[in-house]
Amino acid sequence: MRMYDMIYAKRHGEAHSDEDIREMIAQYVAGEIPDYQMSAWLMAVCFRGMDDRELSTLTDAMAHSGDTVDLSLFGDHSVDKHSTGGVGDKTSMVVAPLVAACGLYVAKMSGRGLGHTGGTVDKLTSFPGYSVTLSAEDFLCQAQNVGVAVIGQSGNLTPADKMLYALRDVTATVDCIPLIASSIMSKKLAAGAKSIVLDVKVGSGAFLQSIEEATELAQKMTAIGRRCGRQMAAVISDMDVPLGYYIGNILEVKEAIMTLKGEGPDDLRELCLTLASQMVSLGHGISLEEAQKLTKETLDSGKALEKCCEWIAGQGGDASFILHPEKFPEATCRLELCAEEEGYISQIDTTAIGRCAQILGAGRVKKEDEIDLTAGIRMAKKTGDYVQKGDLLAILETSRGETLKEAERCYREALTISAEKPEKRPLVFAVV
Amino acid sequence: MRMYDMIYAKRHGEAHSDEDIREMIAQYVAGEIPDYQMSAWLMAVCFRGMDDRELSTLTDAMAHSGDTVDLSLFGDHSVDKHSTGGVGDKTSMVVAPLVAACGLYVAKMSGRGLGHTGGTVDKLTSFPGYSVTLSAEDFLCQAQNVGVAVIGQSGNLTPADKMLYALRDVTATVDCIPLIASSIMSKKLAAGAKSIVLDVKVGSGAFLQSIEEATELAQKMTAIGRRCGRQMAAVISDMDVPLGYYIGNILEVKEAIMTLKGEGPDDLRELCLTLASQMVSLGHGISLEEAQKLTKETLDSGKALEKCCEWIAGQGGDASFILHPEKFPEATCRLELCAEEEGYISQIDTTAIGRCAQILGAGRVKKEDEIDLTAGIRMAKKTGDYVQKGDLLAILETSRGETLKEAERCYREALTISAEKPEKRPLVFAVV
Repeated sequence: MRMYDMIYAKRHGEAHSDEDIREMIAQYVAGEIPDYQMSAWLMAVCFRGMDDRELSTLTDAMAHSGDTVDLSLFGDHSVDKHSTGGVGDKTSMVVAPLVAACGLYVAKMSGRGLGHTGGTVDKLTSFPGYSVTLSAEDFLCQAQNVGVAVIGQSGNLTPADKMLYALRDVTATVDCIPLIASSIMSKKLAAGAKSIVLDVKVGSGAFLQSIEEATELAQKMTAIGRRCGRQMAAVISDMDVPLGYYIGNILEVKEAIMTLKGEGPDDLRELCLTLASQMVSLGHGISLEEAQKLTKETLDSGKALEKCCEWIAGQGGDASFILHPEKFPEATCRLELCAEEEGYISQIDTTAIGRCAQILGAGRVKKEDEIDLTAGIRMAKKTGDYVQKGDLLAILETSRGETLKEAERCYREALTISAEKPEKRPLVFAVV
Repeated sequence: MRMYDMIYAKRHGEAHSDEDIREMIAQYVAGEIPDYQMSAWLMAVCFRGMDDRELSTLTDAMAHSGDTVDLSLFGDHSVDKHSTGGVGDKTSMVVAPLVAACGLYVAKMSGRGLGHTGGTVDKLTSFPGYSVTLSAEDFLCQAQNVGVAVIGQSGNLTPADKMLYALRDVTATVDCIPLIASSIMSKKLAAGAKSIVLDVKVGSGAFLQSIEEATELAQKMTAIGRRCGRQMAAVISDMDVPLGYYIGNILEVKEAIMTLKGEGPDDLRELCLTLASQMVSLGHGISLEEAQKLTKETLDSGKALEKCCEWIAGQGGDASFILHPEKFPEATCRLELCAEEEGYISQIDTTAIGRCAQILGAGRVKKEDEIDLTAGIRMAKKTGDYVQKGDLLAILETSRGETLKEAERCYREALTISAEKPEKRPLVFAVV
């Protein structure tokens, strides 16, 4: 393998051999390939793409470039879920205990990362005492005993992905479907679950705007996973509007708890059931219909809520907050936004809503930023709702009162109010 | 200008503003843009191209990234010629004195470089005493007095091109028409001549194999030059067979002298007259017909030969070698290659013939290599000739006898002999 030849071949549309791809990743991680060659290759991939064989080999090589998690003790019953990212997405906190209550195992390492709100791990630290750092042994033990273990990322997982992503980030090669697919799937493969369900978001709050692109990404990712011996499904779901009504950290925990109690918003409940039933179907090897029935029963019976309490308590958290969410601290500053005009909310720039939450302190802009766990948004109206002048649109909450002005401007600009009722979009577009 | 935005825009097929292009080159030369960003941009250009405006701005910025040669004292009468490179190409040594004898000025800085043979400057050092390093003042003075001055490159010409070329060389982005055009033309613009005639070679001895690509390159280069205020013409000429019969350094000087004396091979004479008449037409602002008449008369009258003597003598060289080429040293080892089978020479791999000359010692592989000025090839038969078994094909000459065996193998492999007479290719395909 000579990197020059790799660039030349990809530029001219030729496929790489598996051996060459593996050697390229090994050499890059070893610092033997300069960034200026790798970035040229990445740009050529943006134009020429990669076929499923190349891509799965690349992804597998990336997955094995560092530590991997061994979940083999769970046999075929380890399951994982990944969302490509959206606003108000708190499905993990519902789905993980739900599928565990259905007899499967969710052992997840979750990143903190940058975003509109914190990651799942940040949200979980809302429970006093919850430990996000367990030893490898305790992590697996918790998963085996309870069915759910969620901790922060530790160890050196997928260094190839970290290096490639950092390079893509400064060379305008991030928005490339095969590279996105390999980046996501390398982390999922390293995370060890036998069955993986992907939630590919599409719409104004996602990085993909078209269903065609989302479908392509879903197909690429499921193809990679299957070639690498995993059971795969991908749900293409709407992110043109925030999921549920609450956006933040504690706020999202609260809405997840409501959903586990059967009191959550319809869209969140529907998406959680969709994702969970795919996981249950793959993990237990049963039909989707059976899986749908089992997950719905498990949620409605309160067993998922019970499992959630076990999970939080198992990791040292105060589970009484689940039964008494009023115990969570609240933000010290609140601003009620009311409608200044009458009409239908015809469109929401959901990315801007996420930015508004970030402004309020719910998410990090830089790695070092401290998150305000109480900050966030309680939406009152969403796309399709009709508002009168003076109707409550949303409540902005934060402990940093100085952010409210900018957050309000951001929120108001994100809404389009017009005379015509917008067409209703489905929540789930397709399952790949 | 943010380099990320430049990469993003080019990747997505958007055109750059002139200001952004100039700033990009300035920052790159200043070391403010990392190679990994520039290589991603270059790869995007390979796929998206550049329009004539972008390309001429880029080229002009590259031309002005370092020193430039000021030939304004010659008004509209300074002319230059550039060949994209081939085997046996000794036209400069004929064309320069020829157009000078027609009243124009050729003030050329010529690189040594790597290749099958040395560059023009190497060839000129065959004349004892010829000085390839003149001060800027003496260089212009020689050009003004004699009409021809050819020296080696000095100063810091087009550092942007040197940096970009070095990066392209290791990122598989060399063979990209707009980037080739900007590289060549940046050097030509910096070299200062008002009128520039390009000789774009096509065929087995050139880097371009198709007339379409050669035409595209010619159009790009002439468009750049015209937008930058130069008078331009480009000749697309055949390089499927070596030009003339002699390949080497002293050997090529000899064939150039023969051509100035009216004793040269037809193809070399025809191409020299074609290029010279284009230069004369542009430089004097006369019709091509008038220019053709003038150059032919000047060549046939012996005035070009006389001018050649003035030129060599003016730069300190022993011009008696022109009238008595037998004074040039000859190689100590010779090998006569005879045909081992009967038939037509139907195809010559001309790049391999060039490599054969390089093996014999006529050209450098590495910068530090010493050239054997006596080494080279005297061809006896070319494409289309019929040979009997035992007929002389070529004489290989070198002072390094140990190279003959490999050179012979290389030469023989370059020839295809078959029963059918090949179709004759024209020498000049088009003038752009």
